[in-house]
Parts: sequence; C-alpha cells; structure tokens
Amino acid sequence: MSLLILGTVALDNVKTPSGFKKNLLGGSATHFAMSARLFTQVNLVAVIGRDFPKQHLNLFRRKGINLTSVVEGPGKTFRWDGEYKKEDMNTALTLATELGVLAGFVPQVAAHQRNIPNVFLANIDPDVQMGLLKAVRIPKLIGLDSMNLWINHKRTSLLNLMKKVDLFVANDGEARALSGETNLIQAAKYLRGLGPKWIVIKKGEHGVLFYSDRYKFSFPAYPVSRVVDPTGAGDTFAGGLMGYLSKAGKINERALKTAVIYATTLASFNVEGFGLSKTAQLTTAIVQKRMRELLKFISY
Amino acid sequence: MSLLILGTVALDNVKTPSGFKKNLLGGSATHFAMSARLFTQVNLVAVIGRDFPKQHLNLFRRKGINLTSVVEGPGKTFRWDGEYKKEDMNTALTLATELGVLAGFVPQVAAHQRNIPNVFLANIDPDVQMGLLKAVRIPKLIGLDSMNLWINHKRTSLLNLMKKVDLFVANDGEARALSGETNLIQAAKYLRGLGPKWIVIKKGEHGVLFYSDRYKFSFPAYPVSRVVDPTGAGDTFAGGLMGYLSKAGKINERALKTAVIYATTLASFNVEGFGLSKTAQLTTAIVQKRMRELLKFISY
Repeated sequence: MSLLILGTVALDNVKTPSGFKKNLLGGSATHFAMSARLFTQVNLVAVIGRDFPKQHLNLFRRKGINLTSVVEGPGKTFRWDGEYKKEDMNTALTLATELGVLAGFVPQVAAHQRNIPNVFLANIDPDVQMGLLKAVRIPKLIGLDSMNLWINHKRTSLLNLMKKVDLFVANDGEARALSGETNLIQAAKYLRGLGPKWIVIKKGEHGVLFYSDRYKFSFPAYPVSRVVDPTGAGDTFAGGLMGYLSKAGKINERALKTAVIYATTLASFNVEGFGLSKTAQLTTAIVQKRMRELLKFISY
Repeated sequence: MSLLILGTVALDNVKTPSGFKKNLLGGSATHFAMSARLFTQVNLVAVIGRDFPKQHLNLFRRKGINLTSVVEGPGKTFRWDGEYKKEDMNTALTLATELGVLAGFVPQVAAHQRNIPNVFLANIDPDVQMGLLKAVRIPKLIGLDSMNLWINHKRTSLLNLMKKVDLFVANDGEARALSGETNLIQAAKYLRGLGPKWIVIKKGEHGVLFYSDRYKFSFPAYPVSRVVDPTGAGDTFAGGLMGYLSKAGKINERALKTAVIYATTLASFNVEGFGLSKTAQLTTAIVQKRMRELLKFISY
C-alpha cells in the first residue's frame, strides 16, 4: 500500500575525504523517497523554494514519486552545509543551515492523500510532524525519525509525538541522548517505554539493533570498503524499512527482519556516492543482488 | 587437540561504573585459558611472582588448566590498574602497570609440551611471543593477539611475528592503528597482507568482523544489558575462538563461523562480572544455552 512521507527537501553542500560537492539534492524526505520508491507508491509532503531547480522535480517524477503535496514557498529552499572527517565518517558536522522556506512550513496534504495508510515522519521539526499526523485520517503504520536538535530543544513536542507512532528510528547517538542510557539495549528499552512498539537503532557501519516486546534482533552493516558520503544514509535506511513494510502489508517477525535487511542494503548504496548519485540509479534487481551478498556475509 | 597459551598472568585493580575491585586474578593468558578450557586441554605458559596467591593456582588446577610451564620469578606478579568510564565502556584506561616478574621473562616450555599443535600468543611483548614460537616444534594452528603499546613501540617485532601466524585477532582501535586505515574492511585487508590468513576484528559491543581471502563475515555481539567489567573480554573471545578451533580439528567455513559464535558468547559472560567471576563458573551447558539465544538474536 502507498506511503506518505513528510520531511525536508534540501540543497546540500557536502565535504568528505572523497571531495566537495555543491548544491546536491538532499533532505530527509528526498533520501527517504528515493529508497522507498523501490517498494511502493511514495507521496511526498514537503516545501521547496523558488530557487529549486526544475531538474530535481523532474527526477522525482521520473522515479514515480508523487509531488501533489509539495508546495513552493516564497523564499529559498532549505540549505545544509556539512562535513565528514576521515576519523569519524559516522558523524556529520553541520557547518551551516539556512532554513529559508522551512521556517513557518505547515504541511499541506491533498484531500485524497489523507487516506494513505502508511506514514513516515522523517526528520523535521516535531511540531510540523504533529501537524501532518493530525491531517491523516486512518493511519495503519506510522514511523518517526528525529535528531539531536529536537531532542535537546523540543523534547516535549517529540515525546508527545512518540506516544502516537508505531515505529521509531534513531541513530545510536540520538538513542543515547533521548534515553540518557549509554547501553544501547537499555536505551532501546527506554525508548520503547515512550510509546513506539518497534524501536530501530541505526549504528552506521556497525549495523542495526531492533527492539520490541516480542522480537529483538541485530544485523551487521553491509561491508562497504569506501564510504564516499554518508549524508542521507539513515533516511535511505528508513525508506527501505517503511517501503518494504508498506508493501508487505502483514507485519510479523519475518517481515520486520526482511525490512531491516532491505534497509541495510539500501543504506550501503547511499554511502558509496555523493547525494543521490547511487540510490537514484537503483533497480530492484541491483538491490536484491546486494541483499543476497549481505545475507551471505551475516548468515551462520 | 590440546592448546598452548602464552600470555600474562596478572593481579588487577579495576574501577568501573559498577564498583572498584582490588587484586583480581587477571592477565591475557588467564582470561584466555578460563574460556578455552571449555573446549580443550589448555596448557599455560606464563610467569608469576612470589606474591601470587595459592588460591589462584588452585583455581587454575580445578578448572583443568595445566600449569607445568608456569614459572615463579624472583619478584612480584605483574599488576595492572585500570578504569572504564560510563561514556565508553569499550575503552580501558590504564592508570598504572607494574611489570614485576614480567620484565625479562623468557618462556620456559616443558619438553613434552613443545609438540602441542595449537598455539595462542596472547597479548605480551612480541619478542617474548617470538621466543615461544621458536620453542614449539610442529605448530598446526597459531593465533596472535597484541595491543597498541607494541604496535607503537615494537612494530618491527610484531610485523615479523605476523608473517608466522595463521590467525590474528585485534580490536577495532588496534586494527586501525596497525593498518593506518579508518575503514575496517580496508584495515582487515591490510592486516591480511601482513601474513595471517584469518583476520578477526573485535568491535566490543558492536560484534566482530572476520576477514580472509575465501570467507568474510560479521556477527553482532550478544545484547548484554549491563556491562560490569569488560577487562579480559577480548582474551575470553580469543579463548573461545582458539578453543573451539583446536577441538574442531578440521577448519572450514562452518567451523570458523561456529568458533566466532562461541567466542562472542563467551565474551558476553566475561563482561557481566568483575574479573573471572562469571567465566570461572561456566559450564558447556550454560554456554550452549546462551549461544542458542545469540543465534536467535542474529539470525534472519
């Protein structure tokens, strides 16, 4: 079934040990959508500025991503300038952000899209996330991502939101910051207590931990030998996870594990190139080939 | 088949968020032996001081560990004082070391023990490790561990040694320091180029990476919800790995994977208590029960 995704659409300047790229199409919703579209019909809810290049809109359309609820605001597209250092490719250093049209953004969801059963709230202000949640009618599966900025500065809004979602994805640093627990098992248990029945902690190159009352499991990451640009890896992961679950319909242990394996596979492509250079080229066949390699790498 | 283990026997003072314990029986060979004894006959090669408590020798004997090649030197037992901070339970901070009888130690191997086919060189000065290697006659499987001290200060000795061993175990920090590579896949590849055909990179709470020309695989760690004292976890891991391989005899992909799973299981017990408090109590049945839990946690 189809999927509604709220988040940012951005223009990124990214510096990594592999180079420096300007004006990359980025943002949490962008990376999520480019991943989830491999599984299901993706409907984007986002805001862009008047400077947003037409070719990017065309890319979304060519990839089958519905743009009905993408609005153009009176100003510039959200911008993020970031850097990754060789010593710690897991951590993005934010050099600058320019909110532009993101300031004051209120999600506008087309009437017929309010019935979409699967919703993902990618990283954006939790009050904006709550706005979308109020606009959807009968959500079946709701996923949520956030970041340290909101954990530190909009904790109450985030906690309210967590009571209303099924699935919460966080990286290890965010899980530790939100829970106050250093041990990730304890952190996951704490996050479970905040509401979401499924907790997914992404550990970058170290893989992923899934925690719920019934199922607990962990998988390593795919062994990428050259990380070019990790920007959007977490969103790409979440796109694979929610995309597969939306397609699967019935969610049991097997479906959850398969979703996490797909998510891991997709994230591995993302980090191998700047921006969307790898993920926009993916086909189901390419993804499944690497998924088989991953399964060989992690199977006993 | 039986196993010869060279390394340190120490008295440790350890401070962790769970408490402060003095005069714990520790050292690389000690933790290794307490783990490997669950699989095979273990023969210790080490030096102790005149202050070494008799009850510790009795513990080794009760656990079936052969002490023929443990010598008493004219001085005090090697001492290590260390601490782990809550923020990073993966990293031991060395507060003090007193070499004592370890200074000038030359391994003495009883004549009949020189034919033991499986040899592990646990962390100790690489020149001492080379001394043992020269004393053994027809080694079939040789494993090696080291630490940053030797990587930085006795690199040439360590590199000479690496040409002569089959299996090299290192934690992620050591693998990065020795290879100069940040990416662990690249680091493992580099270490493979130094000689050992099997490279095992231990990542603490994040699990383990195995790298060889033919087989590459990774498993997560067992989800320990309260790490009490990580001292000796790497040695306990290596003990399970070499212990199982010594018992298995034939080494193929299945045996290597099973060895890594056993090693992971044993390390998880080690960190749950100070010193040997958990590992000295282990039986094969207890280990196999947790191994089944681990397999459930990591299986697709």
